[in-house]
Amino acid sequence: MSITPVIAIHGGAGTILRASMNPKLEADYRRALQDVLRAGAALLAGGASALDAVTEAVRLLEECALFNAGKGAVYTDAGTHEMDACVMDGATLAAGAVAGVTRVRNPVLAARAVMAHSGHVLMIGPAAQEFVARHGVELVAPDWFATPERHAQWLRARQQAGTGSGAVLLDHDAASLAAPLDPDSKFGTVGAVALDAHGHLAAATSTGGVTNKRVGRVGDSPIVGAGCYANHLVAVSTTGTGEMFMRAVTAHDVCALMEYAGLSLQAATQRVIMDKLPHIGGRGGLIAVDAQGQVALPFNTEGMYRGYARVGGEPVCAIYGADNADPSTAMLGPS
Amino acid sequence: MSITPVIAIHGGAGTILRASMNPKLEADYRRALQDVLRAGAALLAGGASALDAVTEAVRLLEECALFNAGKGAVYTDAGTHEMDACVMDGATLAAGAVAGVTRVRNPVLAARAVMAHSGHVLMIGPAAQEFVARHGVELVAPDWFATPERHAQWLRARQQAGTGSGAVLLDHDAASLAAPLDPDSKFGTVGAVALDAHGHLAAATSTGGVTNKRVGRVGDSPIVGAGCYANHLVAVSTTGTGEMFMRAVTAHDVCALMEYAGLSLQAATQRVIMDKLPHIGGRGGLIAVDAQGQVALPFNTEGMYRGYARVGGEPVCAIYGADNADPSTAMLGPS
Repeated sequence: MSITPVIAIHGGAGTILRASMNPKLEADYRRALQDVLRAGAALLAGGASALDAVTEAVRLLEECALFNAGKGAVYTDAGTHEMDACVMDGATLAAGAVAGVTRVRNPVLAARAVMAHSGHVLMIGPAAQEFVARHGVELVAPDWFATPERHAQWLRARQQAGTGSGAVLLDHDAASLAAPLDPDSKFGTVGAVALDAHGHLAAATSTGGVTNKRVGRVGDSPIVGAGCYANHLVAVSTTGTGEMFMRAVTAHDVCALMEYAGLSLQAATQRVIMDKLPHIGGRGGLIAVDAQGQVALPFNTEGMYRGYARVGGEPVCAIYGADNADPSTAMLGPS
Repeated sequence: MSITPVIAIHGGAGTILRASMNPKLEADYRRALQDVLRAGAALLAGGASALDAVTEAVRLLEECALFNAGKGAVYTDAGTHEMDACVMDGATLAAGAVAGVTRVRNPVLAARAVMAHSGHVLMIGPAAQEFVARHGVELVAPDWFATPERHAQWLRARQQAGTGSGAVLLDHDAASLAAPLDPDSKFGTVGAVALDAHGHLAAATSTGGVTNKRVGRVGDSPIVGAGCYANHLVAVSTTGTGEMFMRAVTAHDVCALMEYAGLSLQAATQRVIMDKLPHIGGRGGLIAVDAQGQVALPFNTEGMYRGYARVGGEPVCAIYGADNADPSTAMLGPS
């Protein structure tokens, strides 16, 4: 039986109000998702590994200012940008991650460099970016990440917080929203999961965190097992209220439910997103692909920027919970 | 059925050669372990929560220069100290952690402060210690952590590495060992797990990392799910080759094997330490206690500083694999 490679991506979950989304912006998001999926699928069609495909997909999402990772990352309470990323190769369980980097243009490439060259899994802060720079990863000036939209989002978060600190906004706050912002309703992060022609799985996750977060805060995205995991059975990348995903060890929990409890991909991902996470107040979603090429994209929020593409097929993308173009279980939304 | 509270601790696993251990040093280690266990058991006897008992046990281990955490932490390749810690409350799944702190006298108290006051799970670097200092956690000068033994260990690691970087030593290298040091045979970290009178579980882990590690490297100790985890079923703290424990998500894997595969505490901990970790080259051990008060202390190395105490009983301590004073399964060593 030959394997049809597949890649899935996400660009964050949360409250994505149709009222605050204009047709131009929605078209921009859909085109961005499709472009990344086409690029990833083209790599897989050419024989690239799942690891290389998810790395490139996340690099492209980082380069796109629409998403909260790399260019377009949100602001900390000090008006800076601190980014985290993780990558994992399910075939070998090799993993690399960085947290708290401020000058790495593409944090996912820093994570790859940590995996390839450091002998470690996780490196943090200025030392991490000095290390990856010695291995050819591009550093940029800290203001490279700034965008007017994120800056305005940060100013609104500070204004709501009164003192200018303490309130956080997650990233998909629509800039045109006039009503008071719900600080718990918008989340960041981008991610990719893939199955390649060799039957190998990989996952990658990257984020700018949450708007107005404390400097030094690290969420689930760079944590192997929480925001990112891949093994021989399944690859998972998550997005949402990071602290809850850390406490639930969400990505690894999906693997464990499949391996130990015998759950299908759909059942395991539904269990963690619709049952276990809400039980502790966790909101968000995940993308996952298993060794048979099944895809699950569940979320318990109003929307999640998401999509998948199989080699030989067209990309399938969706934003809201009710507009799934694909009626198959591959586009699972809120139940 | 009334619950008998219990606490277990570890002070690192690795090659602990009898030939390099003199009777005085061995007695010092045993007395240190017993003192910490008595203090933890006394707290539990007085009605303290498992969370408070493990925090205090780890604080005492950090204060003891024999162990690689807090005072006595190993040196980085820059001749500095960078410490990581995590604490988790199994009753609520609340967790707190710090990584890359250089001036926090007791990293486990910093982890508690992050859990209690930040709204986050993990904070890193200088911002983390500034945050916890505002919440009353004591900072000290960076040289407070220095000890002659660890400094000599670092100089030997640098000498072996030739260039002064690139080789790491894990922490229980005996200072008197004349033969070339095996850089992969000695590990650091301290930890505690406990069950309290209310049936609640908690875990805590703290480390200085590995001798001559790269600045910025973070291992499994502060990672919820890898080096530390607690839920309603079991509490786990690990020690060993951190990168492998991160890739295997070891602490959470023990929980998942019990909850989803129905394994006993003994079977689950044996599986991860004797089977799954060695499969990817992982060396070390863990301590675990379940909701029934069962204790497991398995390791796949020559030794692990370890012990446990039940309220109303005497502490039981061991260092090597073959000298288990207690023939019960509670003192599992290498198979």
